[in-house]
Amino acid sequence: MGRDRFPLKLLLVGFGNVGRELARILVHRTDYPGLADLDVSVVGITTGRHKSLANEDGIDLARALQELDEHGRFTPGNPDYAELDSVKAAETLDYDVLVEMSPLSIENRGEPATRHVRTALGRGRHVISCNKGPLAFAFREIRTLADQKGVAFLHETTVMDGSPVFDMARSCMRGNTILRIDGILNSTSNYVLCAMEKGKTFAEGVAGAQAEQIAEADPSNDLDGWDASVKIVALANVLMGADLRPHDVDRESMAGITPDRVKAARERGNRIKVVCSAWRENNTVKASVKASEVPLEHPFALVDATGSIVRFETDLLGKILMTEENPDITTTAYGVITDLYALDGGDR
Amino acid sequence: MGRDRFPLKLLLVGFGNVGRELARILVHRTDYPGLADLDVSVVGITTGRHKSLANEDGIDLARALQELDEHGRFTPGNPDYAELDSVKAAETLDYDVLVEMSPLSIENRGEPATRHVRTALGRGRHVISCNKGPLAFAFREIRTLADQKGVAFLHETTVMDGSPVFDMARSCMRGNTILRIDGILNSTSNYVLCAMEKGKTFAEGVAGAQAEQIAEADPSNDLDGWDASVKIVALANVLMGADLRPHDVDRESMAGITPDRVKAARERGNRIKVVCSAWRENNTVKASVKASEVPLEHPFALVDATGSIVRFETDLLGKILMTEENPDITTTAYGVITDLYALDGGDR
Repeated sequence: MGRDRFPLKLLLVGFGNVGRELARILVHRTDYPGLADLDVSVVGITTGRHKSLANEDGIDLARALQELDEHGRFTPGNPDYAELDSVKAAETLDYDVLVEMSPLSIENRGEPATRHVRTALGRGRHVISCNKGPLAFAFREIRTLADQKGVAFLHETTVMDGSPVFDMARSCMRGNTILRIDGILNSTSNYVLCAMEKGKTFAEGVAGAQAEQIAEADPSNDLDGWDASVKIVALANVLMGADLRPHDVDRESMAGITPDRVKAARERGNRIKVVCSAWRENNTVKASVKASEVPLEHPFALVDATGSIVRFETDLLGKILMTEENPDITTTAYGVITDLYALDGGDR
Repeated sequence: MGRDRFPLKLLLVGFGNVGRELARILVHRTDYPGLADLDVSVVGITTGRHKSLANEDGIDLARALQELDEHGRFTPGNPDYAELDSVKAAETLDYDVLVEMSPLSIENRGEPATRHVRTALGRGRHVISCNKGPLAFAFREIRTLADQKGVAFLHETTVMDGSPVFDMARSCMRGNTILRIDGILNSTSNYVLCAMEKGKTFAEGVAGAQAEQIAEADPSNDLDGWDASVKIVALANVLMGADLRPHDVDRESMAGITPDRVKAARERGNRIKVVCSAWRENNTVKASVKASEVPLEHPFALVDATGSIVRFETDLLGKILMTEENPDITTTAYGVITDLYALDGGDR
């Protein structure tokens, strides 16, 4: 991949929970001794409904966060205030890295995120995408464009928050052929299953996930298996050389899972989990998302609520699993930071 | 760390099970599609009792393996045969990377492995150590020497075989401060505990581990907690900036664990596991190896027989676990290969 060096200038496209937590960490970076060498500034922030900021010398992030807290949006009183939409910012601002954090739209097949990514790469700028759309709907095109331009396209947060699932497979498992990937990758569905095990109804589980801000106001992408499909496609495309789209996944909705079915599984010594899988078959890669009964002594059975897990089967290293326990918003924002370090390259 | 580029010339110091498996993989590398770009040759192999080989154009590894199978040692009939001990080879051969694979001696505080390592680094050559001694007994000195000489000191196989525990923490978790490390890292003791759960005696468990070539002929380093101590010290020194020696570890021998104690733990819904830990306390790092009761729903309880697990607690990423399931000798040999790739640096 293309490499660069700190200092790096960032354009943040979208400024929801993850973007704000990233800004908070940058404002308070001296609280984190390991970040002493993280030398970045934010030169642009664009949002869909809360206006935008731009300053080539670096936006005052503390003020930006305070304004959102107080006014719910950026205001013309801010010296960095700008009338600028995300596409224009991607096209015109002078940044080193575009950080794509706009919301995923499956209906629009990953747009407008893919457009932002294409624009930045086309200008020879690096991209860190927290949005799964470009990976799931246009990965090969984007990979090719990034390679042509000699820049990086990174996306660690898209699967398992900040856990370095892509980075580990890319940089620590070299030489291996990945034969199979399995994982529990959607928090909302796992949360609902755990709630039903504790005697709640499906609807109560969903309401709980919404109350804890795990699920979106419209949780259907999670419960229908779309989010999990997008994630397993991202893993298969990036790590197994596949060329899948989410619609190619053999996908099972959670709609049919009742508390009775969950209870019956428990009585058999099992737990129901939404398991994503990708495997090689006849010179191609296939993928599925299935509600599966997992025995209690299987590592997947221990993944509670918002945790996640991935297991790689490889030809040399054998079987290796990565588990993320109880992630929070800092974990997710760290996914952007680990990509910034990967971009910096440098001595390891 | 210092970087280099393929092709790389290797000196193998020691040629036991791991070295032979590495040679086998190199001979059959076309069977592993991911290894197409692994461009290395072996210019020297030294052994304690089986004689040595040297050839600056590359040793015929297929012939070397065949000779050991047929004669139990290298013979003067081999055109690569050399009268050469490991120290002289380290001092005089023209190699890029010394791969230290001689047996660990705790009584001799890591020697002669540390001498081999020091010699190679002093000559400005990279070192990959499968021997834990240099890490546990002389890490700071070696790290300083490698940095002064601008070369790499890598050691992925020393903990969890081929699983990239050091590489992941070094290159995929940058910016984090590691607050705590826990793990199950010794196969023999875990195998014996699992055997006792199935009704075997301690001695039968040990005999089983020896029969499966998990334990050494003298398994006392494993059962006394020394091997686990060496490993947690390696992790703490490398990843937490500690300066511990194995003798500093609060170490519990397995000698006191009886089948009755194992059974009683199971009746309480727990399993006994030998857990290694390192944590920060009063501006220093402490470490322990303890036989601990772990609840069945804890990920450590699922680690069976030869498996292993490590869990990192960090300030940004949160809690992340890596599990290795049923490793074999290929997994361990892959640890050397992942270090060769890390050395090559290159695009990720």
